[in-house]
Amino acid sequence: MTNKRQTQPFGLRNKKVLIIDDNADQHLLIKNAMNRCLPELKLVQTLTADQALSYLCSCISDDWEAPELILLDLYLPTREDGWQILQAIRALPAPLGHIPVVMLSSSNKPEDIQEAYQRGSSCYLVKPLVFTEWLESFEIIREYWWNTVALPSVRFGL
Amino acid sequence: MTNKRQTQPFGLRNKKVLIIDDNADQHLLIKNAMNRCLPELKLVQTLTADQALSYLCSCISDDWEAPELILLDLYLPTREDGWQILQAIRALPAPLGHIPVVMLSSSNKPEDIQEAYQRGSSCYLVKPLVFTEWLESFEIIREYWWNTVALPSVRFGL
Repeated sequence: MTNKRQTQPFGLRNKKVLIIDDNADQHLLIKNAMNRCLPELKLVQTLTADQALSYLCSCISDDWEAPELILLDLYLPTREDGWQILQAIRALPAPLGHIPVVMLSSSNKPEDIQEAYQRGSSCYLVKPLVFTEWLESFEIIREYWWNTVALPSVRFGL
Repeated sequence: MTNKRQTQPFGLRNKKVLIIDDNADQHLLIKNAMNRCLPELKLVQTLTADQALSYLCSCISDDWEAPELILLDLYLPTREDGWQILQAIRALPAPLGHIPVVMLSSSNKPEDIQEAYQRGSSCYLVKPLVFTEWLESFEIIREYWWNTVALPSVRFGL
């Protein structure tokens, strides 16, 4: 698929994505898939809500470090943990609180999907079962967030 | 681009997208592009906030009529009008209030993009200048919302 509005070849350099998942195996899988589909991006990988919020708060003093997209596992390990961190992210000062959040989960329960949107996630991705499907998902995520829609600035003091 | 998790050939039949734009020419352009990229979907086209909210409220008594995605022009004709209808949509009872909203605008001002995310739009699409770019955008929108992420149910009483 071609897209005439593609970002410049180096347009994603220095851009960051934050991943919050309590499963190290999932981190490795996501890292491998993103390295294939979004090799210019820097991944910031955190295993806990505390690590993630700590990292995001550190961005307040360094606007070049803020991620443009957050991938958030819902069951951390319970879904209440996922909702809590989503709420905490949305309560952060601008522009951190407005970073799009892609909620990830192995759960395809309608109530989980519904509640994710209700609580302010930008969308909900049911975790693929095989690596090729992860690649397909990240390819579309790249096309959608970086080559089609406009992401909000993550620079402070806009 | 292939996607092994593509929806069934008729999976989008009876699905609906609501478009809110005060410019009839834009409606025609969007309709033509969507007919090419998302021919199975039914478009509900409204020119004013009142028409759109009236339609959405009518969905409360008919769960099969609710749209799965809303495309909302920001300047209707002022941006305050766009923010007001976004707020009104988000205040609707579930599941209407959680329908993803793609904010559309010719404006690429960072403050418009930032505020759209801040006020709860799912994303922000700067309106393409030429028809082929609309086609590319809707192709990605199809891949993203219907073949990659999971949309929330628009059935009442989930």
